[in-house]
Amino acid sequence: MKKTAKKPEKEADVILAASEQQKDLLYATGFSAPDPFPFFQIKHRKYVMASDLEIGRARSEANVTSVLSTSKVGKRLKKRTGKAAGLGDILIEALKEKGVTKARVPHDFPVYTADRMRRAGIKVRPVLPPFFPERVIKSEEEIEAVREAATLTGQAIELGIDVLRRSSIKRGRLWLDGKMLTSESVRAVVDGALLTRGLQGQGTIVAGGEQACDPHNRGSGPLRAGWPVIFDVFPRSLKSGYHADISRTVIRGKPKKRQREMWEAVKEAQALGCDRLKDGVNAKEVHEAIQEIFKSRGFETGEANGKMHGFFHGTGHGLGLDVHEPPRVGGVDATMRAGMIVTVEPGLYYPGVGGIRIEDDVVIRKDGTENLVDIEKYFELS
Amino acid sequence: MKKTAKKPEKEADVILAASEQQKDLLYATGFSAPDPFPFFQIKHRKYVMASDLEIGRARSEANVTSVLSTSKVGKRLKKRTGKAAGLGDILIEALKEKGVTKARVPHDFPVYTADRMRRAGIKVRPVLPPFFPERVIKSEEEIEAVREAATLTGQAIELGIDVLRRSSIKRGRLWLDGKMLTSESVRAVVDGALLTRGLQGQGTIVAGGEQACDPHNRGSGPLRAGWPVIFDVFPRSLKSGYHADISRTVIRGKPKKRQREMWEAVKEAQALGCDRLKDGVNAKEVHEAIQEIFKSRGFETGEANGKMHGFFHGTGHGLGLDVHEPPRVGGVDATMRAGMIVTVEPGLYYPGVGGIRIEDDVVIRKDGTENLVDIEKYFELS
Repeated sequence: MKKTAKKPEKEADVILAASEQQKDLLYATGFSAPDPFPFFQIKHRKYVMASDLEIGRARSEANVTSVLSTSKVGKRLKKRTGKAAGLGDILIEALKEKGVTKARVPHDFPVYTADRMRRAGIKVRPVLPPFFPERVIKSEEEIEAVREAATLTGQAIELGIDVLRRSSIKRGRLWLDGKMLTSESVRAVVDGALLTRGLQGQGTIVAGGEQACDPHNRGSGPLRAGWPVIFDVFPRSLKSGYHADISRTVIRGKPKKRQREMWEAVKEAQALGCDRLKDGVNAKEVHEAIQEIFKSRGFETGEANGKMHGFFHGTGHGLGLDVHEPPRVGGVDATMRAGMIVTVEPGLYYPGVGGIRIEDDVVIRKDGTENLVDIEKYFELS
Repeated sequence: MKKTAKKPEKEADVILAASEQQKDLLYATGFSAPDPFPFFQIKHRKYVMASDLEIGRARSEANVTSVLSTSKVGKRLKKRTGKAAGLGDILIEALKEKGVTKARVPHDFPVYTADRMRRAGIKVRPVLPPFFPERVIKSEEEIEAVREAATLTGQAIELGIDVLRRSSIKRGRLWLDGKMLTSESVRAVVDGALLTRGLQGQGTIVAGGEQACDPHNRGSGPLRAGWPVIFDVFPRSLKSGYHADISRTVIRGKPKKRQREMWEAVKEAQALGCDRLKDGVNAKEVHEAIQEIFKSRGFETGEANGKMHGFFHGTGHGLGLDVHEPPRVGGVDATMRAGMIVTVEPGLYYPGVGGIRIEDDVVIRKDGTENLVDIEKYFELS
């Protein structure tokens, strides 16, 4: 029996997304665009496809082997099929022209296009993050970009805290220059300071009172004396695209004993996290050690009235082009590797008492961590 | 032969995304979140699934029938399977608990989760935008949100233009208060003015010279006298989530004859677009009429040296929670309906001469359009 030669598979990494949102695409191309565009990589050859609107910018900015024109491929397709081609069809046509038979795609690749690719005979294999495993290890250039973002973000937080420090307390509210301070007004100070430094705030948190007990509540309305106020600021540098992610918690007016104890526990837990993480360590063990500190100091984690209290989020997460990216520092196994950048951000949240979180950004090094955040940690504003 | 009763299908609309990015999800829930969360709707019953971190905020902000806890469903799953469950598994479990057999999903639904749903016996049908067809018709409340964003964006543009107006020309560059004006410095004025008005710029364009010939070039470096400068500003209101999208083009110093002719042609074309659009009209015909104006005035569209020139983008696009959303106003059939909001933004781009674009946001009404932009159109800064 004669053997028929089997055509070898040709695999490509394929992404179809807006690189302003899908950061693997930004990482692979260095080209930031607000609208979806196709990217594929065959071995070390990278291709971006751009519309007439974007092709000039793509040619000058994208760090790829070649920029292809979607309108040219689209015209060829239309000539053959008589129908206007969508972006997915154009991508499929380009893949076929290159002989691609298999596509490795990010988990969030659009199912509509994946279905069409499969009907066109291209195998599609979605992979869970990280799509580019090398992205979790930062180059020194990337570390410098996060360090710069962290330095500027620290300044913006200190300007925001300074507004609280200079305020006076009247009937439990905070006042400055004849105006009552609100989450919104203090956030505007922080976001404005970010903007003048070339960073864009992305949902900056300035939350006090009961609101701070919801770790994702951004805060709204008047800020109150005697309640911790969480600043959690995680802007993107407009220059580099990299993020910082820093939290500080302060209180105006005399704290209650329980609040001070919470602060001390969070500060100790956060320092322990920064101390224990290093190359080779399992992040899960560090997370569990932090849980243990809280427990041993009497800060239980649990649920009451359908609401969680205590320490009920992860210790941290990878940080870079995304605010949240692999690895996780939490309840799952994750071996730390030199060059990773992660946040360390334990917190405690008790309705009726308040929320406290402290967060730094650290680089994992051979023998420990290097802290990229250089602002102080204090609770009471004197 | 006995007939076996066929179980009736139960269909749900399903989305798994971050509503800060996937605006169908924001539209359906009114709940803005930076991280992906599951949503499904069975007939008129809407469900959001939220993590412990977000559930408090989801319960108070999401406009849905019920907010389910991902951690509770995850725990049930883990008990049964012994494995930690991902967000997709948790969504599938919740769908199965509700008896869902078919899912209608947005075209960009994550393929990884779609594959898992299919393996779990749930049919998945991706649909092209608009996912919620009713989203293209804006309520009066939505129109007011865009109107407010447009008013404030207009003010920010005028403040940016005013910087150019007040500048002096030295050796072809623009100077103000001893500093040379750059795209970056003028953009900072515009973005800062947006921020103090509660809007966030999203890639604001201030581009002059050859850069303005690339419609998506944001502009960088010194601005020059004698070249048109395009302002294209499309921020999101932090209050409502809705966008405005306005462009104006101005020139500092005496324009060349060709530049003035371009400006007049664009202004006429833009006015014609605003005049011709109304309920029942095919947007494609309006786009073609604009192409015709340019052609009749001698402004050809084509390609030279691998670069497009003339009028090579659409006339406009839908505007709302997304900057770009259906319908398109361009080379494809699209019947305009009362209550749509679209941009009208023809432009001309000629390397060596410059780029000019004028853009308003209009509501399609029964008998014409209502312009939501109230700032003037002028070219030369006196």
